[in-house]
Order: sequence, then C-alpha cells, then structure tokens
Amino acid sequence: MKTPIYLDHAAVTPLDPEVAAIMNPYLYERFANPSSLYGAARLTKSALEGARAQVARVLGARLTEIVWTSGGTESVNMAIQGVLRAHPGASWVATAIEHDAVLSCREPMERDGHKVATVGVKPTGVVEPKAVAGAVDDSTVLVSVMLANNEIGTIQQVGEIAKSLELIRQDRKKRGVTLPLYLHSDACQAVGYLDLSVTRMGVDLLSLNGSKIYGPRGIGLLYVKYGTKLEPLIYGGGQERGRRSGTENVAAIVGLGEALERAQVKRSDEGKRLAVLRDDLLKKLEASLPSLILNGETKHRLPNNLNLTFHGLDGQSLVLYLDQAGIQASTGSACSSGDTEPSHVLMAIGRSKSEAGASLRLTLGRGTTAEEIAYVAAKLPPIVERLVTIDQ
Amino acid sequence: MKTPIYLDHAAVTPLDPEVAAIMNPYLYERFANPSSLYGAARLTKSALEGARAQVARVLGARLTEIVWTSGGTESVNMAIQGVLRAHPGASWVATAIEHDAVLSCREPMERDGHKVATVGVKPTGVVEPKAVAGAVDDSTVLVSVMLANNEIGTIQQVGEIAKSLELIRQDRKKRGVTLPLYLHSDACQAVGYLDLSVTRMGVDLLSLNGSKIYGPRGIGLLYVKYGTKLEPLIYGGGQERGRRSGTENVAAIVGLGEALERAQVKRSDEGKRLAVLRDDLLKKLEASLPSLILNGETKHRLPNNLNLTFHGLDGQSLVLYLDQAGIQASTGSACSSGDTEPSHVLMAIGRSKSEAGASLRLTLGRGTTAEEIAYVAAKLPPIVERLVTIDQ
Repeated sequence: MKTPIYLDHAAVTPLDPEVAAIMNPYLYERFANPSSLYGAARLTKSALEGARAQVARVLGARLTEIVWTSGGTESVNMAIQGVLRAHPGASWVATAIEHDAVLSCREPMERDGHKVATVGVKPTGVVEPKAVAGAVDDSTVLVSVMLANNEIGTIQQVGEIAKSLELIRQDRKKRGVTLPLYLHSDACQAVGYLDLSVTRMGVDLLSLNGSKIYGPRGIGLLYVKYGTKLEPLIYGGGQERGRRSGTENVAAIVGLGEALERAQVKRSDEGKRLAVLRDDLLKKLEASLPSLILNGETKHRLPNNLNLTFHGLDGQSLVLYLDQAGIQASTGSACSSGDTEPSHVLMAIGRSKSEAGASLRLTLGRGTTAEEIAYVAAKLPPIVERLVTIDQ
Repeated sequence: MKTPIYLDHAAVTPLDPEVAAIMNPYLYERFANPSSLYGAARLTKSALEGARAQVARVLGARLTEIVWTSGGTESVNMAIQGVLRAHPGASWVATAIEHDAVLSCREPMERDGHKVATVGVKPTGVVEPKAVAGAVDDSTVLVSVMLANNEIGTIQQVGEIAKSLELIRQDRKKRGVTLPLYLHSDACQAVGYLDLSVTRMGVDLLSLNGSKIYGPRGIGLLYVKYGTKLEPLIYGGGQERGRRSGTENVAAIVGLGEALERAQVKRSDEGKRLAVLRDDLLKKLEASLPSLILNGETKHRLPNNLNLTFHGLDGQSLVLYLDQAGIQASTGSACSSGDTEPSHVLMAIGRSKSEAGASLRLTLGRGTTAEEIAYVAAKLPPIVERLVTIDQ
C-alpha cells in the first residue's frame, strides 16, 4: 500500500490519465480557435459540440441549454448574479448550508437591492422542502438548493422542492403574478454519485465542474433551462450564444464531457463500493471512539463522505497529525481559502463552535481501497486519543 | 515544409511542450487543493505562489497585485465591471478599437448608470493621447486603452496616456475632486512582443492571458495596482485575497507563469526575427498585388501582424481558399463567435464596409519560417486575383 492515502476527494480529484489522453490532441495539433474559419478550426468546434452533446445526454438537456464556464464557482455565480441582475428588485432564497460560492453572493446581491432569505436545515443536514416553499414570496425569482453538501455529504430532496415550487408557479399564474420562479442547484459534489437528470430533478439551473470527477480543473458548466432569463457575468466575443464570452478552452471542455460521461457510467457500482468502505470505516471508528459524532444523517448522504466530530480536540491539529501518519484529510470545506471561522454547515446543523472546530472530513474516491480503510481505522483512533489528552 | 502553415497566432497559439512538461506534475501527483492543510497541499500552494512571483517579476509588480483569472476576457471584465461597480454613477472612457471583451461591457455598464465615452483613433490605428485625455471629465473613474490591437497590431502610447492622466489626477486633487482615475490596459496581444513593466507604462490595471504566448488556455491574470478599488466579479471561498474565488487551477497557473517568463526572455530576438519575415512578406505581396492596402501604420505595430485589404473580394472566401492551399489565416478577430459584422477596428480606421469585408489578417509566430513565408508569398497573389475576378 502506498502512502499518503488521499481521503480528500471532495476537495479535488486527480486527473484521470485516460481523460488526459483524450484532451491531449487539443493542446497541440488540434489547438485552433474554434471561432476561426479554416478546416482545423471547424474540427475543434466540432469537438466542442461533441462534448456538449455528451453533457446534454447525461443531464437529459438540450444542446443549447449547456453553457461552458471556468468552474463550479463561476457556474454558481453566473446562475445567481445572472438571474438576479436580469430581475431588478427580485428576491432570492438559499439554504444555510450552501457552498461559499453561493452564500458569498448574498451580501453583494443585497447591496444591489435584492432581498435574500436563508432557510435553515434540520439537525440531519437535510432541508425541509416545506421550509423552502415557505420562504418563497411573490418577489422571489430564484431558489438555490444544493444537490449534495460538500462538507457533510447530505443529499437534498431537490425533486420534492421542485414540485412545491411548481405549485407556487401555478398559483402565481392564477393570481396574475408574472415574475418567474427558478430553481437552481449546485451539483458539484453530487456528480459521480447521483442521478443528474434535470427533468427528473425539475431544476432550471444546475452548476457542475470537472475537478471532483477526475476531470480537468478550470472548467465547469451551467445548465440553463430553455427560456430562463439571465444576464451574462462575462461579456465579449459572444461565445456560448452570448451567454459566456471568451475563447473556449477546448481541451478542458473535451475533458469535462469525457469525465462526466465516465463518472455517470461508473456511478452506481462505484457508489456501492465506496458506501461499503465508508460504512466499514465508520463502524470501526465508532468501536474505538464511542463518543464520536457523525455529522449529517446516514440515509440521504453521498456514499463517499464521512464527517466526524471528536469532542475536545482541534480539527486542524488532527489534520496535521494525520498527514504525518500518511493520511490526507480535511477539517471541512477546502474551498475556503485560509478560513479559520467554524464551518457554517456544522453550525447550521446545531454543532457548537468548539464541536465544529473539532471535526474531520474524510472523503473516499476511485483510488480508495479496503487496505487503505483498514490503515485509517487503525491509525486514526490513537491520534484522536492523544490529541484529546493534550487538549485537556 | 509541413502544411498547413499556421498564420493565425493572434487567435491562439499551441501549447509549448516544455511548458506542458512543467505543468504535468500538477495534474497528477501534485494535484492537491492548495487551500488544504496537509503537506502536499502546501506544496501546490507554494507552486501557485512561485508562479505569482514569476509574473510579478515580468510586470515589475508586487505579489499581492496579481490576481489569477480564467483568461483574457474575464480579466478585462473584472477590471471594467469591477471598477465601475465599486464606483456607482462614475464614467468610463475606452478607445474605439478595443477588443470585444472591452466594448461589449459598454451596454451593460450604461444600463447600470455609467456614462461611457468612446474615443476614436487616427487612420493609422493609433489613438491620440490628447483625445483620450480630452474625453476624461470629473466623473471618469476608468480609462481603457489596449496595449496592442488584436486585428491590426497597432501599439498604443499607453505611457504617454498615463502621463496625461496623472496631470488630470493632480488637477483633480487641487480642485478637491476625490474620485480616483484608473488606467486599464488589455495587453493580451502585446505579451511576448512588448515591455510589460507596469510602472514604465503607468497602468493601474493590466489584463493578460496564456493562450497567445504558447501557454495554457483557460487561464489569465489581472494586475491590480495596490490601492485600486474594485468589486469582485466572482464571489465564493475568498481565494486571491477575496478578489477572485474558486479553487485555483494550479497546473494552468504554473504554466502561465512559465509561458510568460519564456515569452519575455525571447521577445527581443523573436520580435526582430518575425519583423524581418513579416516585412519580407509584405514587400513581396505589394509587388504582386500593388492595390493592396496595409491596415494600420507600420511604425508602432506588433512585429508579427499583417492586416491587408484586397479591394473587391470577400475575406471569408479568401480564408477558405487559403485553407485549401494549406494556409491558415483569418479575416480579423477570431474572438468573435460567428461574427459576420464588418470589423469595428477596420471601420474605426476609416475603411468602408466592403473594404473591411475584404480583409485578411496574417499573424506569424514561433513556428513561422522563411520557407513558409516564401510559400505564402507565392500562393496568396494568384488566389486573390482569382477571387477578385470571380467577384467582378
């Protein structure tokens, strides 16, 4: 067994060499700008559109509903800022456990005159669909509910929420309220584990990226349902039917299409495999460390995620000790740069500040083996015990 | 000699395999999220900061003045939207020959309540510094002047413009006008050919990207002078000191740093080499096609750019015939997707619609050889003559 053991797949995944091999020609001999006129450029254009078709098949979307972006954060910003800017004065509803890419839009959007409502979640880490619907009023144009959480892995009932929003839309129609009501979901963590059919979910906007699915970084996409009115975030040469300008990153787009297709083909088997390993790890850790708390419920949860609180230690120290023992993990989201605030997700599910600071996220992935899990199950408990003793 | 001959380097350049080799480890073994805490992540963080130092050295900037973005278009949008959003009601001045990434911001910024003034250029394709200063009034917060034009290669006197803006700043100070006045320059086409010292230019904001300098695509940067007030375009985890959120594309950043450094090391020799080839091509073409017009002046011009008008033909047909003859070129900017409007740059220097539509851009690059130039000099004139005859 090789160390270090990487258990931070929710932060980022390595690039699949097979995906890289498919991207490679678009870096060198097929590098032309897809907007150029000559034959070689038409070939890169066609590769770009081939990737769009791959994505559209996975999402059950139309080709024209897929917009390439530079990643998950841009996709989320484009959905939120784009819809709100296109509807001056309209309001927005988001859950309290959304990714920072979503929640950090609250303040600037409020400054722009948009009311923002934040909906809490149950202690299980799941939002009550009724609570979401209850936060919607006649000024609401957008509702953001992530498909799966990046810290605790809990899966939201996006389909149920979509149904209740549809009832609100019908009621609005009867009453002559013409403001649209869009459902946006950040699916960055869900890809590779959950069904991504936009019609089954009933979403109007869906954000995805390549960096959690063994695809390239710096590339993402936004699904925008036909007819959804949104303002671009980035203006220019009019690429992506005017919705996102800038010369297309063809190699990365080809890689994202391929990575997404592969992730969805593997997702059922891989999900089952990782759930077994994850559950085994949890059982072993619970046996050694009976006071640990599992953050987030077990039922509606990504199969690769464990988020644990160990009373009385410092999560950052734990990560550093684990690193020395050859285990790479994180305290929570790795997406907040140098963040020392307690996790807003753990606080939202009722943890205290000190509990939130005593937490560890272990996220499994394609490379994770039973041998690695056995190693972690053996190494982690004594480190936790030592740290708890030091702290007391 | 291998065909096709690529003479569209202003559209995009292939990735330098040596740059790719330096990027490669960051796709695989060193793939960690730089915001994570463990040792491997600290190494990727350090690579990210190493690239920042490379860029800062080339620009003569501080480390904290460099912000990574997803490319030239985002860098330009961040500068313009960022500064204007941070200064509600303030005005913006831009030249008429800016890239679409700049000019497409005009309409949304006007909708947001910003006055936008567009300054014309002389028939040479160079803007008069006095004309820029003359367009500035007490409401102006931002002036955008590109360093070198993407279609006709003309180089603007950014240093002179900076000096006249400094006089305006001093005058404002005396009169108690507190609004800042920032100079923004889009240097995407200039990299690899011109001096990029931000202090010698006197700019407050400078946009750059990797895709014209044999670096990776999907990556760019914005130089933001210390103290410049601008609102982020993309919110989230707070990367880049809160100025541009989103997990950093480490491999691409490492590649951009490397490509930029290499481009600046080579620029003097390479510029001389390409100017000789370009001038030779022009002389030969003028001998065969005496009625051709060179668009843009010769003196202040990128060494790799030729932009020619051939009366009485259709530029798109010319590009397609050249493609059949093994020569890849463009009608003008390749950065406008499916654009069929006449070039705003050629119109701004006084070409008629039909002249603008009868134009060809040839842009040389690292791979260009004397043999290729001789081939083009032989092949192009009979194609032009045939097309002019067909059209008449």
